[in-house]
Amino acid sequence: MKRIQIYDTTLRDGCQGEEVDLTVESKLAVAERLDAFGVSYIEGGWPGSNPRDAAFFEPAMALGLRNATVVAFGSTRRAGVSADADSNLAMILQAGTRAACVVGKTWDLHVREALRVSREENLDIIHDTMRFLAANLDEVIFDAEHFFDGWQASPDFTVECLKAAADGGATLLCLCDTRGGSLPGDITAGVAAAVGAVDTPLGIHCHNDGEMAVANSIAGVQAGCVQVQGTVNGVGERCGNANLVSIVPNLQLKLGYECVGERELQSLTELSHFVDELANREPNKSQAYVGRSAFAHKAGLHASAVRRQAQTYEHIEPGIVGNHQRVLVSDQAGRSNLLYKAKELGIDPAELEPKVAELLEELKELEHKGFQFEGADASFELLLMKAINGEKLRHFELVGFRVINEKRHENEEPIAEATIQVRGPDGELEHTASMGNGPVNAIDSALRKALVKFYPAIEEMQLVDYKVRVLDDKRGTEGMVRVLVESHDPSGHWTTVGVSPNVIEASWQALVDAIDYKLYKDGKRAKAAGEAAATNTA
Amino acid sequence: MKRIQIYDTTLRDGCQGEEVDLTVESKLAVAERLDAFGVSYIEGGWPGSNPRDAAFFEPAMALGLRNATVVAFGSTRRAGVSADADSNLAMILQAGTRAACVVGKTWDLHVREALRVSREENLDIIHDTMRFLAANLDEVIFDAEHFFDGWQASPDFTVECLKAAADGGATLLCLCDTRGGSLPGDITAGVAAAVGAVDTPLGIHCHNDGEMAVANSIAGVQAGCVQVQGTVNGVGERCGNANLVSIVPNLQLKLGYECVGERELQSLTELSHFVDELANREPNKSQAYVGRSAFAHKAGLHASAVRRQAQTYEHIEPGIVGNHQRVLVSDQAGRSNLLYKAKELGIDPAELEPKVAELLEELKELEHKGFQFEGADASFELLLMKAINGEKLRHFELVGFRVINEKRHENEEPIAEATIQVRGPDGELEHTASMGNGPVNAIDSALRKALVKFYPAIEEMQLVDYKVRVLDDKRGTEGMVRVLVESHDPSGHWTTVGVSPNVIEASWQALVDAIDYKLYKDGKRAKAAGEAAATNTA
Repeated sequence: MKRIQIYDTTLRDGCQGEEVDLTVESKLAVAERLDAFGVSYIEGGWPGSNPRDAAFFEPAMALGLRNATVVAFGSTRRAGVSADADSNLAMILQAGTRAACVVGKTWDLHVREALRVSREENLDIIHDTMRFLAANLDEVIFDAEHFFDGWQASPDFTVECLKAAADGGATLLCLCDTRGGSLPGDITAGVAAAVGAVDTPLGIHCHNDGEMAVANSIAGVQAGCVQVQGTVNGVGERCGNANLVSIVPNLQLKLGYECVGERELQSLTELSHFVDELANREPNKSQAYVGRSAFAHKAGLHASAVRRQAQTYEHIEPGIVGNHQRVLVSDQAGRSNLLYKAKELGIDPAELEPKVAELLEELKELEHKGFQFEGADASFELLLMKAINGEKLRHFELVGFRVINEKRHENEEPIAEATIQVRGPDGELEHTASMGNGPVNAIDSALRKALVKFYPAIEEMQLVDYKVRVLDDKRGTEGMVRVLVESHDPSGHWTTVGVSPNVIEASWQALVDAIDYKLYKDGKRAKAAGEAAATNTA
Repeated sequence: MKRIQIYDTTLRDGCQGEEVDLTVESKLAVAERLDAFGVSYIEGGWPGSNPRDAAFFEPAMALGLRNATVVAFGSTRRAGVSADADSNLAMILQAGTRAACVVGKTWDLHVREALRVSREENLDIIHDTMRFLAANLDEVIFDAEHFFDGWQASPDFTVECLKAAADGGATLLCLCDTRGGSLPGDITAGVAAAVGAVDTPLGIHCHNDGEMAVANSIAGVQAGCVQVQGTVNGVGERCGNANLVSIVPNLQLKLGYECVGERELQSLTELSHFVDELANREPNKSQAYVGRSAFAHKAGLHASAVRRQAQTYEHIEPGIVGNHQRVLVSDQAGRSNLLYKAKELGIDPAELEPKVAELLEELKELEHKGFQFEGADASFELLLMKAINGEKLRHFELVGFRVINEKRHENEEPIAEATIQVRGPDGELEHTASMGNGPVNAIDSALRKALVKFYPAIEEMQLVDYKVRVLDDKRGTEGMVRVLVESHDPSGHWTTVGVSPNVIEASWQALVDAIDYKLYKDGKRAKAAGEAAATNTA
């Protein structure tokens, strides 16, 4: 089983992505996760390009990573300056890493038009830079920028550049598809040429401008590269870098290469979501291997086959990468989907069975209004319980609420104040008020304040995410609005949904479901614990 | 130049995607766009599976499409029923198309475990179904489900299935990577086996479970397939289908195949966004070829090289697929990015030059607060104008507003009522009020009502989208909130941004910028028109 080095550049090239912006603290947290996942290299930043990148290295070296080598990135020395006088290279050494990765030009057009030096000078620049860094560091990787474009345009010169780096002491030459437009055939041919020209180990660094970065990286490995550079979730400039989250399982599970440990591979889904969370990106539900939908089955036909034998519609066992199977409820879902879903939620399918036809009708109608339960399991479970019990589970009754938002001067923040009156489980009235950072926050806060009197457990519950979606894009704030509320307590997370043309009403529905679900779930757990205790003493 | 048939299944397989749900009207609108784009086939739905799919075909046949053949989808006859007595096949014929695509099993495991018939019976089922449909239609495509898995497990049987379809009269055999887990090498080998076994033309149908669907589809074509099945933007179940939006330009621009006309290819970006809009999906900014970031440059180094020579960091000229280059403003952006951006907005870089250092500082600070101008060009332009003119452009002054949201009964929709007082350009006060579907809508509506008295042009302006993002996911509705408002008038669209811990304040900032930008832009246009008129009479 051949070992392939995984080289992560999420913290450097990934941060070129339009919406990716990591603080130093976030970068350190990502580095720790990457190390635990088992990558071989973590490129931490370009110390010469901005202060935030430079600030990463000192605390990073203090993390005591077990698996990964931290790498400082930079570019070859400037023209007309000796390597030991180049401030950029000095900053690489100041980073205090044992390895560096340095990008240099290998496309004649680029040398002529962008760098504006002669071919010979470019070769000297590469050679000097490598020699200088190799004398000071354990490992020096040469990133051959535009290697594949260069090799197509003038193969001799591009290969000369590789040789200059190898002669200078580069420990690995990484072949870059910088523009991201190559196809696997181009990669195979280019890598083969490099294999024929130098003895130094090779790496592959691809971008996704043709939606080919994963395939190209794998073609690179198959042609002889021993290192793959990429980013978590494929974040990066333009269309992104090669996605390590797909590359690692493809190499390991499909082609028998060894990248990370088997147990580490099980944290792939978690790693992917962690990086999205820190980068404040909505995870891509359809992402290969780790997406929430990656093993989700909607069509009635597929779903029933999957229940019988998962491998008919699943290319791998989802647990291998830390993901799991889901069966979706939707318009297209049939009876069997619904019963499967009930079972997944711990509801006895036999109890639900007689109500299924009615429930399917109701679901269809709600989805027509704009409800979507695929992302709101808690609201869906409440709906199932309503079908079984004949009426909606409610723990309190609203008498009324009012929220006032007021702004009195151009430069003054508006205030939001909610008053609310509710009736508790035994008919008692509670009337209270709260401020908030906006109308929904004020209502949420007043509502909990009122209910905690009847249900102290509400204290431990928190709102962790609040999403608003205007369903009919044509009408701006006048359209139907779907609100998703994610709540959290010490035992887990749940999501609820509300839909209305009025954002306050939609939010209210989702908040009420969140509280009803919390109390229902606590009751269910208490009952299960009671039964378990009864069994133990029996 | 070899012609490749593009077979779109957005309306059938694409609608299996978790968040894709198209009405019949939307499906018809997509069909017209696909036809105009030049696809060869449009799979409209599975008439036997749900009423919505069945309802598509009658109006679809009446559209009078010029390029595309509409195809009805179905599955092979049931076991134990003759083809002419099978209701599913009858519904295909009732759809009234001249072509059908029928899926049949070709993996022995699937035949045994899912269909539960003998291998011989499966061959009969395929053969009968094809013969029955071929006698009634011009074209019958056989979708060989699980072809690649089947071919790996028991190649002889899988090839027998293809032969049964060909003997029955199938006009094309489409090889399906149903689980989406194959790699290009598997595809190449499988297609080669099929090419060797049958004379019927072949197609390729891939799924993206290994992030390989585009590469696999292209490997299929290179191995001899003449048809590619896929969906717009790769929508579809689990990780999606093969993305035609990447496949078409890869085949046409990189490999010299002919799929659609050159002019039609220029509508690729528009087609992609149109389908996302109808499916109510947020377009993927990083999508290859058509994403908003696909030709966006953030890094100062790249951006300055791109300005000199676009091909250094762009694999194709963006206009070929209807996209365009963007240079981003961000923390990492340097002076040259900013000047380029100003020029793009029609602002004289020389005017801005002396203020650049100060402006970069201000941008950094605003971005630190959570502002993001990458998606809010109008707010950014106002910021540039402020830097040049020394103070912020404002057309009115807020004296104060108040919004009341009130809900008086469980089953009553809440009301939202805003009152507002503003001071106009000559100091006149205007005090008015409006209802709305929520607090922001009520404020927006009261504000315009007040301002239209001073600025009648505000009448023609509309809010078309309103997006809220909680920036710190840890704190729920208490976090910083970023609001993006998209506005529209007869001359175009513009987007503005606001950030605050209070959603009402953030919305207010974005609304004010939207109005200020509208009036500023009208003034700029009037001035340009005046100058043009002066030049013409000179």
